[in-house]
Amino acid sequence: MADIQDSTEVIHRIDPDTKGDNSVRFDELVRLLEHGSDEELHLHLEGFHHSDLADAFGLLDRSLRKRLIESVKEGLDPDLLFELEDHLRKELTDSLTPEEVAEVITEMDSDEAVQVLEDMEEGERAEVLSSVPKEEREDIEVGLAFPEDSAGRRMQTDVVSVGTNWTVGQTIDYLREESDLPEEFLDLFVVDEEARPVGIISLSRILRSPRNTLMREISDETQVLVPADTLQEEVALLFEKYDLTTAGVVDQSGKLLGMITVDDVMEVAREEFEEDVLRLGGVGEETMDDGVLQSSAKRFTWLLVNLITAALASLVISLFDATIEQMVALAVLMPIVASMGGNAGTQTLTITVRALATKELTSYNTMRAIRKELLVGVLNGVLFAIISGVSTVFLFGQGVESSLLLGGVIAGAMVINMIIAGLSGVILPVLLNRWGLDPALASGVFVTTVTDVVGFFAFLGLASLVLL
Amino acid sequence: MADIQDSTEVIHRIDPDTKGDNSVRFDELVRLLEHGSDEELHLHLEGFHHSDLADAFGLLDRSLRKRLIESVKEGLDPDLLFELEDHLRKELTDSLTPEEVAEVITEMDSDEAVQVLEDMEEGERAEVLSSVPKEEREDIEVGLAFPEDSAGRRMQTDVVSVGTNWTVGQTIDYLREESDLPEEFLDLFVVDEEARPVGIISLSRILRSPRNTLMREISDETQVLVPADTLQEEVALLFEKYDLTTAGVVDQSGKLLGMITVDDVMEVAREEFEEDVLRLGGVGEETMDDGVLQSSAKRFTWLLVNLITAALASLVISLFDATIEQMVALAVLMPIVASMGGNAGTQTLTITVRALATKELTSYNTMRAIRKELLVGVLNGVLFAIISGVSTVFLFGQGVESSLLLGGVIAGAMVINMIIAGLSGVILPVLLNRWGLDPALASGVFVTTVTDVVGFFAFLGLASLVLL
Repeated sequence: MADIQDSTEVIHRIDPDTKGDNSVRFDELVRLLEHGSDEELHLHLEGFHHSDLADAFGLLDRSLRKRLIESVKEGLDPDLLFELEDHLRKELTDSLTPEEVAEVITEMDSDEAVQVLEDMEEGERAEVLSSVPKEEREDIEVGLAFPEDSAGRRMQTDVVSVGTNWTVGQTIDYLREESDLPEEFLDLFVVDEEARPVGIISLSRILRSPRNTLMREISDETQVLVPADTLQEEVALLFEKYDLTTAGVVDQSGKLLGMITVDDVMEVAREEFEEDVLRLGGVGEETMDDGVLQSSAKRFTWLLVNLITAALASLVISLFDATIEQMVALAVLMPIVASMGGNAGTQTLTITVRALATKELTSYNTMRAIRKELLVGVLNGVLFAIISGVSTVFLFGQGVESSLLLGGVIAGAMVINMIIAGLSGVILPVLLNRWGLDPALASGVFVTTVTDVVGFFAFLGLASLVLL
Repeated sequence: MADIQDSTEVIHRIDPDTKGDNSVRFDELVRLLEHGSDEELHLHLEGFHHSDLADAFGLLDRSLRKRLIESVKEGLDPDLLFELEDHLRKELTDSLTPEEVAEVITEMDSDEAVQVLEDMEEGERAEVLSSVPKEEREDIEVGLAFPEDSAGRRMQTDVVSVGTNWTVGQTIDYLREESDLPEEFLDLFVVDEEARPVGIISLSRILRSPRNTLMREISDETQVLVPADTLQEEVALLFEKYDLTTAGVVDQSGKLLGMITVDDVMEVAREEFEEDVLRLGGVGEETMDDGVLQSSAKRFTWLLVNLITAALASLVISLFDATIEQMVALAVLMPIVASMGGNAGTQTLTITVRALATKELTSYNTMRAIRKELLVGVLNGVLFAIISGVSTVFLFGQGVESSLLLGGVIAGAMVINMIIAGLSGVILPVLLNRWGLDPALASGVFVTTVTDVVGFFAFLGLASLVLL
């Protein structure tokens, strides 16, 4: 008793005062990695929860991390290996022999082992697998046979399934006696003679039913079965939508292959989401922990694309260099129109990309969304045309007539660009999505290119028509 | 049996062919809302899962939604009401009397009832609550007493707790006999005499242990207890980090007040994510479903801020209007430097804001992050200085000497702006975070203001020094 309470107090209890802040323990870890003996370090590491230690890996710099890897390597905790971010996990497995990796992943659930192995190179993976005992290896190979990011890759092959005519009592006895069951599970499957799931039952329902109740009487009607090739982000959406705790993964014939549980899905959902944010921000799969060269390289491509599109905008400006030469105020004002368009376009784009990801935007309401963005563009366009037009008239007073005309030019260009911004912000991602491309990936650069080019062209074009 | 199988096939099974695509059923719903009789509509609605129906609410336009509300209103399904997006739920409750709302929320878990009530106005809420039976009302009022977005608001007050010396057999008997338990639960709490949780046990562990096992022997050491005033996004991070299915919510003295389960957390995590993305994109709490006026209004503020900052950039340009007058090529080239800086800054900002949200960036590694961004800025700055400098020399050949100088000017300005972009992209969000502000909220506009101003100033300033 004392044991349990102590360990929860120290390790896992989120203390009201520190709110789960582990910084004292982390600072001590840093000190020991810098100056401590191996014994002190080992002793201190014993107090860490594997998830906290995985976080610490991400915060440390390379040299301290190297020492940490050396100290956790021996008798490596499978939970720690699994919890590490992909690139940190790779660093750790690279420092182990294939046999050592095999030993650790043999202790994992099949879905966790698959996640560790899928990031390895072909040859290395084969070497590791050859040292995994047959039974575990076969389970892992089932998972690896499915495409990356599919439900088949994320599923656990160990599931609990019972017959439709089993009683609650029979089921509980079976669970107590059978040793080859997953370590933790939240629901069990009711299957027919061909191993096809016909229902799912939560453990709380089993525990609350009399022993003679038949499984089929308490089988839950909310059953979601996903084919093994379903994308993991679709699976995450289903879990959130239907408030699932477990989903069965089935093959083409409807046979149960494995299950996905909600704790795994939370991580999938976060990863998919991170990907979207980073892509919208023009960065690929970068992490805090990438080195300078890696980060520079990952950002270079997008910056190069931006340079080319910026050059396109310059080309548009150069068409009007004679106009600018006659009236330098145009050069002063032109970035305003482009900037407002870029921002309005980004706003629409953000809304659209999110709505596509959560399926709130479908073919049914696309036309409505476009119509709405057109109207928002007109409305905000007119408002900002008035604000910027009037400000220009008052601030650029080189003559009443010319300043009135200049105000009119900026107002006209503003309306045009804000409308185009709204339309391109919704139409471009919808098109990319329809062509099977990730709308978060490239829409940003397209939209700002459109708004830059249209902004400069509308403003300078109107100016050369009206003013000169 | 046949019954269960049929309903799962039709309603919830994710068919391998359609991959869970409900569009046929949705299209039929639209047809019936437009032209069908009330009877046909009711019949069709019976086939809907409440989550699918909640999604359909979001896709429909206002007039069709109005008819749908009329048809679901009577005998309203509490699950449907809960699953609706906030603004749609409000639309539905607005069409009900306070007594009708009270009737529906009485059937809900306390955390769900709190979520429905918290969006209502004070007076309306009081009116609804007065019609809720005393016992349920008290549970709801416990939740409502905690601050918005706190663990206390999200917790369910019905929990299952057992004594440390109970046996598995006793526990199962208690679960079968006690009627006042939550409908579904994943874990149960082991509490001491003062109702303080000392451990948590998963139901699968109870089911797999012999009847005479004591609770304290199988109590799980991974116990996370959160104080009731913890922010819900902190709770979501803890669930993901420690792979939790249930977390206990405690008061200052450590007494168990309620629990939060993983299915609720998935929704919280998604909402918090969405908020971050939308804020980074310069849109507030906008949804696909907002009308034109609402959307325009929500985006207006950010656009106005952008107009002011763009005017600041124009002011910088106007300082150099004499320089531009002498060499129009400057006006042609200047947006390139500003645009590259804006993009580089947004990249750094995106990485930084995400790392702050997931606590991968802490005070321990802030200096390292800043140093890294400085170096990435120098490296990519030099690369793009060379690319843009050389291109300028070849494309702007109004004379060998002047084109060489112009190339040098753009190269120099590029290096300066890319470095400033990297630094401001990491320093600004870190400062906002330290001051307790959301770094996603305002960093974007600050960073691009900095890069615009610095970009124009460096380019035109260098030009006026070197060229004229």
